Amino acid sequence: MIYLDNAATTKPYKESLEIFNKINAERYFNPSASYSVGFDLYKDIENVKKDFISFLDGEENDKIVFTSGATESNNLAIFGSSFNKQKKYLFSMGEHPSVYNCACELKNKGYNVDFIPLQRNGEIDYAIFEQMCNEEVCFISVMFVNNETGAINNLQKISEIISQNTNSCVFHVDAVQGFGKINFSVSDCNINLCSISAHKIGGIKGVGALYISNKTRLKNVNFGGNQEYGLRSGTVNAAAIFSFYEAAKISLNNLKNNLLYVQDLKTYLIKNLETKLDNYVKVVSSLDSSPYITSLIFSGNRGETIMRYLSSKEIMISTGSACSSSKVGNRIIESMGYDKNKVMGAIRVSFSPLTTKEEIDKFISAILEYKEKINT
Amino acid sequence: MIYLDNAATTKPYKESLEIFNKINAERYFNPSASYSVGFDLYKDIENVKKDFISFLDGEENDKIVFTSGATESNNLAIFGSSFNKQKKYLFSMGEHPSVYNCACELKNKGYNVDFIPLQRNGEIDYAIFEQMCNEEVCFISVMFVNNETGAINNLQKISEIISQNTNSCVFHVDAVQGFGKINFSVSDCNINLCSISAHKIGGIKGVGALYISNKTRLKNVNFGGNQEYGLRSGTVNAAAIFSFYEAAKISLNNLKNNLLYVQDLKTYLIKNLETKLDNYVKVVSSLDSSPYITSLIFSGNRGETIMRYLSSKEIMISTGSACSSSKVGNRIIESMGYDKNKVMGAIRVSFSPLTTKEEIDKFISAILEYKEKINT
Repeated sequence: MIYLDNAATTKPYKESLEIFNKINAERYFNPSASYSVGFDLYKDIENVKKDFISFLDGEENDKIVFTSGATESNNLAIFGSSFNKQKKYLFSMGEHPSVYNCACELKNKGYNVDFIPLQRNGEIDYAIFEQMCNEEVCFISVMFVNNETGAINNLQKISEIISQNTNSCVFHVDAVQGFGKINFSVSDCNINLCSISAHKIGGIKGVGALYISNKTRLKNVNFGGNQEYGLRSGTVNAAAIFSFYEAAKISLNNLKNNLLYVQDLKTYLIKNLETKLDNYVKVVSSLDSSPYITSLIFSGNRGETIMRYLSSKEIMISTGSACSSSKVGNRIIESMGYDKNKVMGAIRVSFSPLTTKEEIDKFISAILEYKEKINT
Repeated sequence: MIYLDNAATTKPYKESLEIFNKINAERYFNPSASYSVGFDLYKDIENVKKDFISFLDGEENDKIVFTSGATESNNLAIFGSSFNKQKKYLFSMGEHPSVYNCACELKNKGYNVDFIPLQRNGEIDYAIFEQMCNEEVCFISVMFVNNETGAINNLQKISEIISQNTNSCVFHVDAVQGFGKINFSVSDCNINLCSISAHKIGGIKGVGALYISNKTRLKNVNFGGNQEYGLRSGTVNAAAIFSFYEAAKISLNNLKNNLLYVQDLKTYLIKNLETKLDNYVKVVSSLDSSPYITSLIFSGNRGETIMRYLSSKEIMISTGSACSSSKVGNRIIESMGYDKNKVMGAIRVSFSPLTTKEEIDKFISAILEYKEKINT
């Protein structure tokens, strides 16, 4: 099987599973328990949090709250920051459904919500964004790396626009497709809230985190035992947290090499597509997008049909994010100015450091086969 | 180490971890993906759901929604059922913080919330409950087995009171301390919503479920990719679900034997306490409470101090639920009519099928030592 859907989820690293098993066998305790073995676990998790803060280049008194994944982190960031219906909340049109649908819900509830348009390359339109930014704006959510196109938003530039045009505005970044893959710093970009996830970087599913800068006011959105500084109730999942930590360390230690390796794959893919499938395929992802994700449009085709054909050949790609696969059309690529009909032919190919050139060759051969098959 | 805090969390079964590893190694895909291996996983999870519905004795077209745990299940059940501020919402005073604090939040939001008092044995006061029940009541949440005292509420009786006194009322049961341990049937008790959790029955942390009867209207409370029939967004955690399934099967297959075994342990504990520590210890849990949980009061002592002493002897017990350990006092035992000062001496001893009589002997010896130490 050729797995080219790593933006949906990745195969967990062996090391990430090993530590999960070790904790479950030896330290299965509830970290909220006050007795020695429970409290020791709690202290070790606090140390893991310190390391996560330093992975993100945060400050010593910032917080990490572990969640069940990025969807929960994004829900907490957004609803936990919604204090004032008179103020304005801005979201990019490129956001993942776990941000975009929270934005829509805020709007439904009567909050003043507006969406930042995208440029043709998938990044937000910085000029329009600057016009939208003013002292009324209290919350801005722009993702780091887009999950469908790989477009990388310039967080530094966004941060400058925010600081020049707003007053005490919270900046939330969904960094799920960037963390552990492409370097960034929450401090350099004045990020208040940052969502990350384990299973996109060789960790297990069911664990993510929300980074919270020490300047940020956040309220809890679930209710219970008041774990995680009262911000996230529920038994703290120590095994999953240590497993996430392991995956993060592996990813960050290999970040540069992985990035070069995957960039080489993407260049190879695009070069071959252009040589062998010119006029048949349009590469949506811009040259400076994340090398981990390539979005393609096959004009006159349905992405769904191509996906099914490739699946029958044991090649796994997606027509968008797994989270929006049931929807018709594609909000993100349409927002970039593509025609609705063309967008139906969009597919996403996403790599991991385990992907090989041979797999890309087989993907291209299968596309060539598909093209011949439908043309005969 | 002697672990007597199984109501807080249990050691995962080997089999439960094995299947977790197997899925992560072989079927790490996103079950929302439309390609073959993703969709196959989705279908297998749907079959697991059918089995969970039958474990609970539900009907064929009922639903199971997998969550990150009981806290999330309870939050979804309560906030997902809150449609009408004119109607009345009833909660027992014995509820776990993940229900009780949702009830308080509903009240804060202006909903009409009332609490059902407890009897001395820890069960709800059925007579008062009957007086509280009328056509205004649209939602009732009463737990099956209390997490601190082991008190077992008579769900059948509650169900009859509900059907005789209310009109289209939703009945939610937090069955976290009962599922896999003590038999019950959602159909016999007309339960609409039922919360269960893996890590209390030898499963891993980070996975639970909400059972939803086909008669029940529920809205989503988080927003994202609309997984789980739109009721719970977030990447579906296949490995954790199969792991939970394994723990549930093991627990249910051994339910009767485990219950007899643990009942014998509890009888042994209480008999020994009464023989060796009469007048020093008061058994809060009634004789017909869950054999898995025993609540004790040591008059004139602080539970916290006893817990720390036992911890130094490598015996792990708790002063209440891990979820409320940071709080002063004990809402549940106070609601049963105990004096606030006495309640400070409360501890909880909770068993699993792995607990032995030798461990109970050591616990009692340690308590005797403690008693001598503070009396000298």
